Amino acid sequence: MKKVHNFSAGPGILPAEVMKQASEACINFNDLNLSLLEISHRSKDFEAVMDEARNTIRELFGVNEDYSVLYLGGGASLQFGMIPYNLLRSNGKAAYLNTGVWATKAIKEAKMLGDTVVVASSEDKNFNYIPKNYTIPADADYFHLTSNNTIYGTQIKQFPNSPVPMVCDMSSDIFSRKVDGNKFGMIYAGAQKNMGPAGTTMVMIHKDLVGKSDRKKLSMMDYAVHIKGESMYNTPPVFPIYVTLLTLRWLKKNGGVQWIEKVNQEKADLLYNEIDRNSLFYGTAEKEDRSTMNICFLLHKTELEPEFDKLWKEANISGIRGHRDVGGYRASTYNAMPIESVKALVEVMQAFEKKFA
Amino acid sequence: MKKVHNFSAGPGILPAEVMKQASEACINFNDLNLSLLEISHRSKDFEAVMDEARNTIRELFGVNEDYSVLYLGGGASLQFGMIPYNLLRSNGKAAYLNTGVWATKAIKEAKMLGDTVVVASSEDKNFNYIPKNYTIPADADYFHLTSNNTIYGTQIKQFPNSPVPMVCDMSSDIFSRKVDGNKFGMIYAGAQKNMGPAGTTMVMIHKDLVGKSDRKKLSMMDYAVHIKGESMYNTPPVFPIYVTLLTLRWLKKNGGVQWIEKVNQEKADLLYNEIDRNSLFYGTAEKEDRSTMNICFLLHKTELEPEFDKLWKEANISGIRGHRDVGGYRASTYNAMPIESVKALVEVMQAFEKKFA
Repeated sequence: MKKVHNFSAGPGILPAEVMKQASEACINFNDLNLSLLEISHRSKDFEAVMDEARNTIRELFGVNEDYSVLYLGGGASLQFGMIPYNLLRSNGKAAYLNTGVWATKAIKEAKMLGDTVVVASSEDKNFNYIPKNYTIPADADYFHLTSNNTIYGTQIKQFPNSPVPMVCDMSSDIFSRKVDGNKFGMIYAGAQKNMGPAGTTMVMIHKDLVGKSDRKKLSMMDYAVHIKGESMYNTPPVFPIYVTLLTLRWLKKNGGVQWIEKVNQEKADLLYNEIDRNSLFYGTAEKEDRSTMNICFLLHKTELEPEFDKLWKEANISGIRGHRDVGGYRASTYNAMPIESVKALVEVMQAFEKKFA
Repeated sequence: MKKVHNFSAGPGILPAEVMKQASEACINFNDLNLSLLEISHRSKDFEAVMDEARNTIRELFGVNEDYSVLYLGGGASLQFGMIPYNLLRSNGKAAYLNTGVWATKAIKEAKMLGDTVVVASSEDKNFNYIPKNYTIPADADYFHLTSNNTIYGTQIKQFPNSPVPMVCDMSSDIFSRKVDGNKFGMIYAGAQKNMGPAGTTMVMIHKDLVGKSDRKKLSMMDYAVHIKGESMYNTPPVFPIYVTLLTLRWLKKNGGVQWIEKVNQEKADLLYNEIDRNSLFYGTAEKEDRSTMNICFLLHKTELEPEFDKLWKEANISGIRGHRDVGGYRASTYNAMPIESVKALVEVMQAFEKKFA
């Protein structure tokens, strides 16, 4: 089999050993002679998976048991609604930073439920930078931000000091770099970009935020219900949670977040340096806000796109077409992406320059 | 490997060939040289999976495109809330049949959102029968019922003629028997009992029911949003949906619902006949309401339980401990369970009788 260099923006690349272990668990899980797909979520073997998956999140974020960890279904998009539903009081206020499509969607849901303030937005420049020097209202119930913007290739490099609990959507850069979880009231992430397959969303929430809203809540929309049920109020997405745990184990085994941060920086530097050097390309994001996870770049001459597309496809590269809101190209270099794949892309860019510059 | 007879109530047994195909897809999906776990849900290969998975539901229920089919995250428990949130008008009324714990949970969510009438309940006898001869209010927005009650081993054998749209939770017996989907306004089912692994819930809804409620709805809680997005408004649970499709393909290939209905009846008859014949056991559900999916039985002498437990464990039988609300034993004989496993259980019951009667 020829190796495919998978730059997909999400669901994205996972470590090869994780996929092998996931494949084996479909046939025989934990030597039970049963598939992981057919065992009870209440079996002691799966309860051990759930416990380890929850504890590993706390460990990687360096937080204690004041934070509850949940693995829910419905995607980060469901959280866009659950966050104001649970945290925004009827006479309260929510504050949001708008850095792209996902933040905009989160803001839309909050507005449906109460007073919502957008403290700053980079919409004026098609979200190609991260706003700074904004003021977070001290009377807000929470401040919501998106750490990495998959579509535009921007990333918050320094989180603000917030007078109110910060709620952060880390779907596309969770555990890609060292982050102190204690700075946040809540962190959430759809697994399918940097942590596992599609189908589960991790929610880590501080106990002080639970039950803050006086709203009467549907059970499945209530964090308190899921916390009480230890993330098993109802049948959880068993397989996606297990594969997420496998990915977290892989990360820990190799040196954890400190190790991967270094690797991710190397990969990003390699590609950004080529984008800046190569006469045919340019990057779309402001340099100081460039994401290490999603690297967006365009051709000066868009008419050359078919030629470039031909070259990277020949090199077995996959998934680098940009999102329609930005166009051009986007290389997603999530944790599991080996530097060899980035090198392969750089080589194609160099060969392309030789031919067309 | 010794074969395990898996009678788990859910997540439950899936066909061996499905688990093999699922395992292979974790490594190389559709000969893409990519794992199913790392490809975009917007790739044409997964869009084809989603289309086939949605169309197969319509085909097996014999309905046309007036029904939309969705595969959502969050479990059937999320539907307990979404149903009244979408279908119960502010001045309207919801009608429910209470046949067990899951129906009770569904009723609780509806009551939070509006006027909710329980037309009949079998709670008086610990839900060991299905109420009949009740009246469904003609002015209700919908009538909700649970086709099969996993915990108590009861099943609705004949659906009522309802003056209002019927909404049915078929989580534990979907596609176990011939059902005309056109009788229902909406059918939903968590995949993990009879149709796939945990992590996705199928919702089939008639277009006339969509947008019925005047409520302002959070996006992810709005059926209209998911229908418009063709079940891809956000990243769907890719792997659970694919394995569900594999299971539906297996069902179709072997003769469809007509075939499996016959097989399921044979398995159930075999086990119920033994329960009725064997002097040490008795069934808990009313005979006319006995489920073909979950077969509940008790020992006359509960003190013999440890002895019986020893015997079935030796025979490599798994998952037949009853739910705590009923106690004793429950053998779940979902579609994928081969009759050989039921025979193995019957043999153990007979050996047990020889020793202890």
